[in-house]
Amino acid sequence: MYRTSTCGELRISDVGKTVTLAGWVQRSRKLGGMTFIDLRDRYGITQLVVENDLSLGREFVIQATGKVVERESKNPKIPTGDIEIKVESINILNKSLTPPFTIEDQSDGGEDLRAKYRYLDLRRNPLKKALELRHRIAHEVRNYLDAQGFLEIETPYLIKSTPEGARDFVVPSRMNPGQFYALPQSPQTFKQLLMVAGYDRYFQIVRCFRDEDLRADRQPEFTQIDCEMSFVEQEDVLGMFEGMMRSLFKNVLDVDIPNPMPRMSWYDAMDKYGSDKPDVRFGMTIHEISSEVQGHGFGVFDSVPYVGAIAVPGAANYTRKQTDELTEWVKRPQVGAKGLVYIKLNEDGTIKSSVDKFYSEEDLRKVAAAVEAKTGDMILVLCGQKRKAQTMLGVLRVEMGNRLGLRDPKVFAPLWIVDFPLLEWSEEDGRFYAMHHPFTAPKPEHLDWFYSDKKEDLERVCANAYDFVLNGTELGGGSIRIHEADVQERMFQVLGIGKEEAEYKFGFIINAFKFGAPPHGGLAFGFDRTCALFGGQETIRDYIAFPKNNQGRDVMIDAPSKIDAVQMDELCLASTVKEDA
Amino acid sequence: MYRTSTCGELRISDVGKTVTLAGWVQRSRKLGGMTFIDLRDRYGITQLVVENDLSLGREFVIQATGKVVERESKNPKIPTGDIEIKVESINILNKSLTPPFTIEDQSDGGEDLRAKYRYLDLRRNPLKKALELRHRIAHEVRNYLDAQGFLEIETPYLIKSTPEGARDFVVPSRMNPGQFYALPQSPQTFKQLLMVAGYDRYFQIVRCFRDEDLRADRQPEFTQIDCEMSFVEQEDVLGMFEGMMRSLFKNVLDVDIPNPMPRMSWYDAMDKYGSDKPDVRFGMTIHEISSEVQGHGFGVFDSVPYVGAIAVPGAANYTRKQTDELTEWVKRPQVGAKGLVYIKLNEDGTIKSSVDKFYSEEDLRKVAAAVEAKTGDMILVLCGQKRKAQTMLGVLRVEMGNRLGLRDPKVFAPLWIVDFPLLEWSEEDGRFYAMHHPFTAPKPEHLDWFYSDKKEDLERVCANAYDFVLNGTELGGGSIRIHEADVQERMFQVLGIGKEEAEYKFGFIINAFKFGAPPHGGLAFGFDRTCALFGGQETIRDYIAFPKNNQGRDVMIDAPSKIDAVQMDELCLASTVKEDA
Repeated sequence: MYRTSTCGELRISDVGKTVTLAGWVQRSRKLGGMTFIDLRDRYGITQLVVENDLSLGREFVIQATGKVVERESKNPKIPTGDIEIKVESINILNKSLTPPFTIEDQSDGGEDLRAKYRYLDLRRNPLKKALELRHRIAHEVRNYLDAQGFLEIETPYLIKSTPEGARDFVVPSRMNPGQFYALPQSPQTFKQLLMVAGYDRYFQIVRCFRDEDLRADRQPEFTQIDCEMSFVEQEDVLGMFEGMMRSLFKNVLDVDIPNPMPRMSWYDAMDKYGSDKPDVRFGMTIHEISSEVQGHGFGVFDSVPYVGAIAVPGAANYTRKQTDELTEWVKRPQVGAKGLVYIKLNEDGTIKSSVDKFYSEEDLRKVAAAVEAKTGDMILVLCGQKRKAQTMLGVLRVEMGNRLGLRDPKVFAPLWIVDFPLLEWSEEDGRFYAMHHPFTAPKPEHLDWFYSDKKEDLERVCANAYDFVLNGTELGGGSIRIHEADVQERMFQVLGIGKEEAEYKFGFIINAFKFGAPPHGGLAFGFDRTCALFGGQETIRDYIAFPKNNQGRDVMIDAPSKIDAVQMDELCLASTVKEDA
Repeated sequence: MYRTSTCGELRISDVGKTVTLAGWVQRSRKLGGMTFIDLRDRYGITQLVVENDLSLGREFVIQATGKVVERESKNPKIPTGDIEIKVESINILNKSLTPPFTIEDQSDGGEDLRAKYRYLDLRRNPLKKALELRHRIAHEVRNYLDAQGFLEIETPYLIKSTPEGARDFVVPSRMNPGQFYALPQSPQTFKQLLMVAGYDRYFQIVRCFRDEDLRADRQPEFTQIDCEMSFVEQEDVLGMFEGMMRSLFKNVLDVDIPNPMPRMSWYDAMDKYGSDKPDVRFGMTIHEISSEVQGHGFGVFDSVPYVGAIAVPGAANYTRKQTDELTEWVKRPQVGAKGLVYIKLNEDGTIKSSVDKFYSEEDLRKVAAAVEAKTGDMILVLCGQKRKAQTMLGVLRVEMGNRLGLRDPKVFAPLWIVDFPLLEWSEEDGRFYAMHHPFTAPKPEHLDWFYSDKKEDLERVCANAYDFVLNGTELGGGSIRIHEADVQERMFQVLGIGKEEAEYKFGFIINAFKFGAPPHGGLAFGFDRTCALFGGQETIRDYIAFPKNNQGRDVMIDAPSKIDAVQMDELCLASTVKEDA
């Protein structure tokens, strides 16, 4: 061992001991013939004092032996700040080129440069804390689930391409020319087979893969906490994983979350928050005001099925410039509103709107009452198709929450969203899609509708499905699965998947279900995002040791890259990319 | 919840309680107007008694409610054997087709059939025990390493193809046409980068991938316990992981293993056991007898550099037929000997060999003394090039150990193999290969030889490398890594990897090492095989939930398989497989 102590452990009680430390030179400064060195390792920083002039570059790796002494000028900011090491011998273990950016909490390096030198960026404290937190959460998850009798069972990564959902990454098989494995988008099928196999309580912290056109903060590979249970109903699953999240909050962050955790139906979430992942850290809920505002001659409102509004607290003093800016903001394609109507409840008791010529003060006060607005608030109104308008209001609500500082990352407001619709109709494709996935069970009390041929009946079938939402982010979701072959066949029928296609695509699981599938259900949590939110961050990139960029590239190792012609031949593959491309 | 109790938990103390159980019908028999059902779940089997004739197929999933009563004829073989459930109501949750093989400890199904219906095979007790053991070992590994301050850090699965070692599986990148990711053969590079990044103690239970022509009991995807530490020397790594294995043996199997664990140099292992993974559960070690047998006119021995022998205890009574069979056995290509000489030390005191015309009884007694053979033993002699002959003797030794029942899977004899040669010379390719991998450090005391240009100097350089061997199987191995750029460059030079090639293949890690790489080292354990050996099995397939067959196929889901032409186009790939192929 190159050290007797780490750079984070020595205290005033260690004074007098002779120790050896090893680590990186965080900082080195000469002063009156002495050299002061801040030596850093994973565990902290300790000051070394060398009694001569020493030239050590930043990030040199050194080993130093000396006596622990009390510091004259203590540093209360670090746990080792009461002591320093009076160095007797020093040994340079490795030199370092000057890093291309500073290894400080706030680095001077740009994102691209830090990505290229990820191994240096990872030396910075915020990233170290992020990965330590990730380890801690994974460990707590495993301890909780192990104590509850869950078995962690590894499922294969080289599987078969499945047609539903996003695009698969595929892996050519050299031993089976012309054939491909696929990398799993999730272990969904396998965990259900494990339930058929009688494993009862399964979990896995597992990598998943999706070949999507990457949006910001999406990764082609990501990690899930994947879980499944047998002989359970929805209530059992919610209870089990509420318990898991509660124990994580308590053991990792020392935060108490409500017991029981709040629940909200999907319909309420959409109506009140315009989102199936509502941020309930703040109110400002959406209210429908169609009956209050329609029939007053304002064509915009009269021509749509839905008018809704939120009351933004204390925003009555917004200037014309500010409301104009907000109007432009909602008209951006990301939101997609055609315009924005506002009503200000001024502090002086007056009321003023952008549509005064259509509405009397009394009309506006009725709206204010419907929206539960108070003096000093500004009401923001959007309209259109119901769900679309609600969604826009939801986006606007979150934006106003941000602007008003209502979204404190240190406040945690988890809840379950339940009672999802089972199916979503796609106008474009003229067919139903499964809102969760094709193995999600309809609520037993909705089975009549499920077997109906009418579109409107099918649209109102609710699923035994649930999402875990935290601070406006969906952290997890799942469902009770279909375990009866005839219900599964009906599901494929509703989704327009023919018998032959179903047999080809899902044959093995349909078949498996014929051999005694138990009632079962489960869920999966997005692990990267769970870590980020626990760390008080919105982006996941710092919580992944070696993430890819938005083009799916690892710029540090320069992957993906070309492969040898020999390897292409062995795989019986030819590239159709033009060489100039 | 569909149950109040599992099928494994009810005892005599529960008599009188009303309970609900759910599970699979293991067995159902009618007797005098009653039906007796063995109901099975993950936790055990409980007998149900129904007071009428009931027809339930094997593997039906049922739910039954009734009173716990004391059994008249108790079954001492199962923990629930004192009680049965007097059923009041029964509910068929799902029917089952008749399984294609019996769900018993010894199934009547063939391997292929069981592979196709893996989800049914997994219902059998031996497989359930195997996966439970796997979970338990993984959990203990994590607890031990967490307590030692290790962080589990996930490394990417979509990486860059690396040229050393086995073939990579590759993944075409749709977003980067003509380019490929590779699946990692191990996280070697990343764990070393984590050390450069200062993470100090890293581990990961991680999937690895190798596109090899599959031998029996190899899998294209397999799991490793991958570990790395900074500021350590070989002794620190051995101590840490000896501790891990000791805690696994104790906590999982309640087996005490020696402290400290035995160590053996690679040279001793080859000389005495003819293997770098010696099975030390039994003796029968190899002895060189060149000086005893050469120069007696027996051309076969005189024309080779090495003659070696083992003394097989109690085998002097082997018949001519048996020795003939043994001779044929060593002549098989898998062993590759040209012939076998034997010397029998008969119980009656006589000595008899297959080469009596060249050797006097006194000559033979000298050999017997050299081999430490006792009366009743049979000495088996092979010859040739030293390492080749030793390897053949090693294979023969293990075979004789098997035949004599000396390899009890419930006996555990772990040891470290140390002092490996750093380099292996390939006559075929006329170049050196790294015996472990190109990042393994030479022993500091051998650096002069390492920098020498002479082949014989380079051949005697030892590595700071170590293997963990259990019962004749290499379970793990690792090394202290090269952390100095100039030593790494020399290593590439010795391996015939040119500057440009090294820059192209390993540029990023060579570069990383210029920014302050700490001294570091680590190792990886084969997790699948560790589980199998802990379970007393030699084959890993039962310890993997969904393994592939020897052609790399998952016959249950039928993967790999063809993919759509659309997907091929998106990936800019064309198949060069002829349609008839």
